[in-house]
Amino acid sequence: MLRAPLEPAEAEDMAAALKVIADPARLRLVSILAAAKNQEGCVCDLTEPLGLTQPTVSHHLKVLADAGLVVREQRGRWVFYRLVPERLAIVREALTP
Amino acid sequence: MLRAPLEPAEAEDMAAALKVIADPARLRLVSILAAAKNQEGCVCDLTEPLGLTQPTVSHHLKVLADAGLVVREQRGRWVFYRLVPERLAIVREALTP
Repeated sequence: MLRAPLEPAEAEDMAAALKVIADPARLRLVSILAAAKNQEGCVCDLTEPLGLTQPTVSHHLKVLADAGLVVREQRGRWVFYRLVPERLAIVREALTP
Repeated sequence: MLRAPLEPAEAEDMAAALKVIADPARLRLVSILAAAKNQEGCVCDLTEPLGLTQPTVSHHLKVLADAGLVVREQRGRWVFYRLVPERLAIVREALTP
């Protein structure tokens, strides 16, 4: 009746990525970036829609970056963050029957 | 540049469901049910592939059921659990760019 389940190591990796995204502020950040041109935004664009301070937004972006869900890029004075759709897709597939 | 982010209440609800699923044993349970006939299984089918005891598996299934991710059904001596694909889809869509 049952095929093999996710391997334990694979489940650990997915669970770690899901834990990072299982936070309301980070989900909202991801949803903003997902809807943005080139799926990217600068911290300056993200504070207002979230209603959070810039240090708080920067903290959440760092957590997302450490999990490989966004990448960080310095452009002159500004730091931009871009979604990594492949990493999101891995998480999404864990939830696809 | 940016459309409106997830509403705070919507983000809270999704984050709660993601937190429940962001656990290696529960991810593996969901992956087993997803691959099973009718996307369901009895606890007796689930303990062996997970390598966990029946009380531990029952605990994880209860947490998934409380979050609406599986439904519980008594059939004679056995309790069956079935995935709720609509609930999983809501979580998945939060992660779809």
